[in-house]
Amino acid sequence: MVKVAIVGASGYTALELIKLLLQHPQVEIAALTTRQEGAPSVDSVHPSLAGRLDLPLENLTPAQVASRASFVFTALPHVAAMGVVPDLLAHRCRVIDLSADYRFRDAAVYEKWYGHAHTDAARLAKTVYGLPELFGEKIPPADLIANPGCYTSTSILGLAPFLCNRLIEPKDIIIDAKSGVTGAGRAPKLHILYGECNESFSAYSVGNHRHEPEIDQVLSHASDQVVETIFTPHMVPMDRGILCTMYARPLKPLTQADALETMRAFYAGKPFVRVVDHLPATKDVAHTNYCYVTARMTHGRLIVISVTDNLIKGASGVAVQNFNLMNGFPETMGLPR
Amino acid sequence: MVKVAIVGASGYTALELIKLLLQHPQVEIAALTTRQEGAPSVDSVHPSLAGRLDLPLENLTPAQVASRASFVFTALPHVAAMGVVPDLLAHRCRVIDLSADYRFRDAAVYEKWYGHAHTDAARLAKTVYGLPELFGEKIPPADLIANPGCYTSTSILGLAPFLCNRLIEPKDIIIDAKSGVTGAGRAPKLHILYGECNESFSAYSVGNHRHEPEIDQVLSHASDQVVETIFTPHMVPMDRGILCTMYARPLKPLTQADALETMRAFYAGKPFVRVVDHLPATKDVAHTNYCYVTARMTHGRLIVISVTDNLIKGASGVAVQNFNLMNGFPETMGLPR
Amino acid sequence: MVKVAIVGASGYTALELIKLLLQHPQVEIAALTTRQEGAPSVDSVHPSLAGRLDLPLENLTPAQVASRASFVFTALPHVAAMGVVPDLLAHRCRVIDLSADYRFRDAAVYEKWYGHAHTDAARLAKTVYGLPELFGEKIPPADLIANPGCYTSTSILGLAPFLCNRLIEPKDIIIDAKSGVTGAGRAPKLHILYGECNESFSAYSVGNHRHEPEIDQVLSHASDQVVETIFTPHMVPMDRGILCTMYARPLKPLTQADALETMRAFYAGKPFVRVVDHLPATKDVAHTNYCYVTARMTHGRLIVISVTDNLIKGASGVAVQNFNLMNGFPETMGLPR
Amino acid sequence: MVKVAIVGASGYTALELIKLLLQHPQVEIAALTTRQEGAPSVDSVHPSLAGRLDLPLENLTPAQVASRASFVFTALPHVAAMGVVPDLLAHRCRVIDLSADYRFRDAAVYEKWYGHAHTDAARLAKTVYGLPELFGEKIPPADLIANPGCYTSTSILGLAPFLCNRLIEPKDIIIDAKSGVTGAGRAPKLHILYGECNESFSAYSVGNHRHEPEIDQVLSHASDQVVETIFTPHMVPMDRGILCTMYARPLKPLTQADALETMRAFYAGKPFVRVVDHLPATKDVAHTNYCYVTARMTHGRLIVISVTDNLIKGASGVAVQNFNLMNGFPETMGLPR
Repeated sequence: MVKVAIVGASGYTALELIKLLLQHPQVEIAALTTRQEGAPSVDSVHPSLAGRLDLPLENLTPAQVASRASFVFTALPHVAAMGVVPDLLAHRCRVIDLSADYRFRDAAVYEKWYGHAHTDAARLAKTVYGLPELFGEKIPPADLIANPGCYTSTSILGLAPFLCNRLIEPKDIIIDAKSGVTGAGRAPKLHILYGECNESFSAYSVGNHRHEPEIDQVLSHASDQVVETIFTPHMVPMDRGILCTMYARPLKPLTQADALETMRAFYAGKPFVRVVDHLPATKDVAHTNYCYVTARMTHGRLIVISVTDNLIKGASGVAVQNFNLMNGFPETMGLPR
Repeated sequence: MVKVAIVGASGYTALELIKLLLQHPQVEIAALTTRQEGAPSVDSVHPSLAGRLDLPLENLTPAQVASRASFVFTALPHVAAMGVVPDLLAHRCRVIDLSADYRFRDAAVYEKWYGHAHTDAARLAKTVYGLPELFGEKIPPADLIANPGCYTSTSILGLAPFLCNRLIEPKDIIIDAKSGVTGAGRAPKLHILYGECNESFSAYSVGNHRHEPEIDQVLSHASDQVVETIFTPHMVPMDRGILCTMYARPLKPLTQADALETMRAFYAGKPFVRVVDHLPATKDVAHTNYCYVTARMTHGRLIVISVTDNLIKGASGVAVQNFNLMNGFPETMGLPR
Repeated sequence: MVKVAIVGASGYTALELIKLLLQHPQVEIAALTTRQEGAPSVDSVHPSLAGRLDLPLENLTPAQVASRASFVFTALPHVAAMGVVPDLLAHRCRVIDLSADYRFRDAAVYEKWYGHAHTDAARLAKTVYGLPELFGEKIPPADLIANPGCYTSTSILGLAPFLCNRLIEPKDIIIDAKSGVTGAGRAPKLHILYGECNESFSAYSVGNHRHEPEIDQVLSHASDQVVETIFTPHMVPMDRGILCTMYARPLKPLTQADALETMRAFYAGKPFVRVVDHLPATKDVAHTNYCYVTARMTHGRLIVISVTDNLIKGASGVAVQNFNLMNGFPETMGLPR
Repeated sequence: MVKVAIVGASGYTALELIKLLLQHPQVEIAALTTRQEGAPSVDSVHPSLAGRLDLPLENLTPAQVASRASFVFTALPHVAAMGVVPDLLAHRCRVIDLSADYRFRDAAVYEKWYGHAHTDAARLAKTVYGLPELFGEKIPPADLIANPGCYTSTSILGLAPFLCNRLIEPKDIIIDAKSGVTGAGRAPKLHILYGECNESFSAYSVGNHRHEPEIDQVLSHASDQVVETIFTPHMVPMDRGILCTMYARPLKPLTQADALETMRAFYAGKPFVRVVDHLPATKDVAHTNYCYVTARMTHGRLIVISVTDNLIKGASGVAVQNFNLMNGFPETMGLPR
């Protein structure tokens, strides 16, 4: 049994992570933290855990966390995460950080997009980006994993087979992405009130969403060329799920059968990516750690469609997948399929 | 044309009211107020009004409001409303108050349920309760109307025919009420985030909702007996709509046909209450000023079902209906049917 | 490993059951049946299972089913179920029937409410009603279990502690019940189209829903007195979840603390019923096998609130719970918590 | 008053049209038709009209329709429409056809995409395509209007200003379109059941949706060049609303300010198209006849976003707009704004 702490346990990602870890046969949840006052019970913060987990949310220092747990998931907002990760590592915890703080290899890119100087920049180049389907061999020995963004994973898993095989133009890619509302977090803000986003569909952050440089960095790195995408996110009136519709220009003639076969070969042996023939819906993978992908050709353009559950494969599920790999457990252990 | 102001124009009720008044052939919207800083444009507060109404939201005194408009709708939170209504009346505005501040005849009841001493208690007994189907003859000459609560109207319109005709036991009534989420307002709070209330159904304020004493007061007054109900509200994952399922014990044998006929007779000539044979859904009346009611008998118990759109017949639509009556316009003018 | 068949595998209940059984460590799914032509793949019927289960849906006779599986879940419509259950039992399969066909002890009640003569009436009196929290000791040796209705379980679990302890009037009980749309099945009918029931709330089958006699029978049986309820179901625009708001009249003074304590004592040691202090939402238990219950007192009336996931605790989850008990596995094995 | 008939009155488009016409000051609804047996009341088909319109749905011949009404809206499925339109015209009715049957100028294109030979091909070239913002001057004298498709209008209104001004490459346009579920009609089919599409998002008809050739034809015609788009529709879990995200390559450098100004100039004086600065949501225009459009520039690409209510501006609202123009009424008469 691995003793695990979740630092920043009040959001949707943390709730989903707690639920996954409660089902995991090799995990004991040893500590939950919050910056709120007064050590609220987990029930009061997450009523859906009433009677399932008898722990308070405490305002703990990294040293206190490390005295209770050897493995830590940090589910803090960006900037806050890099304030505690170095201390946790110094106390010999292994860490999966679910924020964006360690996702960029270049501190300047981080500063440009997140508006803060990086206070732990030296660690960026050696942090492993936790997308197991692309970087699986680097994950087991790592002490710190930067868990990917939700749009990022979903987009990358659709495009990587084609970019890594040099089948599409790397600078003429459009990612039209759609996400359920939980992707926007749990802080009470007007735009995510039920009355605002229910029965409504809208684009946001057009041309300036922070997952765009993350997608470009990882796809460039994975395919060893400069990849530049146009990324347009939209909010869908549903709790969870991401669907990315991606448009790319083949470098040479490509049939739909070729495209599907390319994806099947690329993901052979990967338990959580399924290449499907039908046009997948987000509901197909809701509440699972799966990513379903498919491809179509029309007017000489390749259209790739990729779906995930943003809270699971897009966040907490892939974190558990990384946790399994880091601990030598079967990759699929405890994960909903 | 009547020059109209809306005091407190940033919420859902005010938005709905603005939309209704924009369609009204005898209204000119002359002022919108907010307590926010900086006179935001109506577009920035209500993007759905972009290009339809070119007015800022201003922080105006009652005197300033009165200099621009002769008729005022106050859509402020309770307590705030009674802070401005006396001044507006003193400046000779006629006022429809959409808050709870003037709904109770007895200041002690108000204080008990709203937790604040009433600062304009002398006016309570003479304020007209703006439910046109019950008190229509008192509305035309009034200078101040207390616009009813949304649950209140919906419940009362279902029960009044039976209580006024002395057909049911007045102290054995259960109102199981269900409302869409906009009924909870537009202030950013955790419990009305999309991620909290979407795909969820729950009861709240069991045994202590403020509409219970309002229902009891109005039904007692209208039927000239002491009526005591048990009122249990629930939140439904939809934008708008209220359905009340009401259980009452007949004082003498009653058939379903009797019950429907009683309602039809009671509402003859009332343009916005329809007695229907089918079990009405909230969607039947969404975006209209209608209330649909029906009745069933089972196991000797009368079940009355009543539906409204909480933002229209439950709030802004009935306000316009009252406005029409106060100004001598046809009762239905400008109202969606 | 138990070889399991699902007879009637195309609906929502069956889909949920398949997903649960895929996670169960002691189950091998050996056959799926349908009355559709042509042995469609499970993917084509349930796209969310693409790549997870490689079995066709076949039109099999009971004998064929029995040659592949020793344990059968029948998820057929009523009437159809009693057409195959006797044969399955004759072929020595153990069976959990998810239809209503074996829920009534009295064939006349079945005929009255379901409009068909019962063709296997002799078996009714000896069939065990599979509500483990009430009849847990009878389940392990049974060969045939009648799996309870979804409204039924949710209602009964809220009321049983009070009726079995003779704390409430057994003939003055109102059950105001609300269910997500999947409770209405997966056959393409107008009233469950998205455009009909989305953004709408309505009552249906007022005074004549088939779960009313089932509730009355089980509560009467469990509490050894004649219980008669008034049951009013409503449809909520959400996928899954049932909430019952139940109104009862205490036979002697009862405090809220008493009521909660009564429930806690009654469900001590029952892993899937949680007595909570807060007013539970259906979302608290969505995608789990839990039932959350609570109680309030107001105006001398007891209000009990009970929530379940209609597809899990209300159908397929309790079926797996019964399966575990019948096979001597831990009651919670493979069930989402 | 114009006496109006609606031929094919049982669907969502017809319901919306009836509601609009009930509010129109110059319309009398004189007949509703259906191919169903038995002349059902409008209440039984559309419960939301209970008490508002006292007409049966009858199975009438074109001659019978023409004897009651001088103006006819045909809201039939394709193929069925061209079976009655010639007769209606022969009986001197003026007609707005809401199906696709008269939208194509070339019968071969119709046959290719709709799979049926056109039985009234001679009339195609002279039929006016009813998009008032582009072809407004041709509408008043017409006797037959082909009412545009919902995706079609929404897409065209976003792209036309740029194509007509020759500012973008006409063969490198991607339209990523998203629609609420009512766009799929009201026939009971599995894929539009609530349980299937709620909480889900998916693409469909990728590369082969029938609105693609309609968009290409109209934009080519309007801009006098060959336009070819890639059109990908998606289904959004909401009742109504279309949002199109459109990606185009400018032929010469273009700023966002230029793009917005181009649109503003193009739509000057058009009452139902609003060029907005913010990123519009479908909810901004829900239940209105507005189309909101905006533009952004990113990575040298023009992104145009356009939103409508698919049932109003996308279908029944524009039909009433056309009706107004054909009858010399103000373009905005009776339309929700």
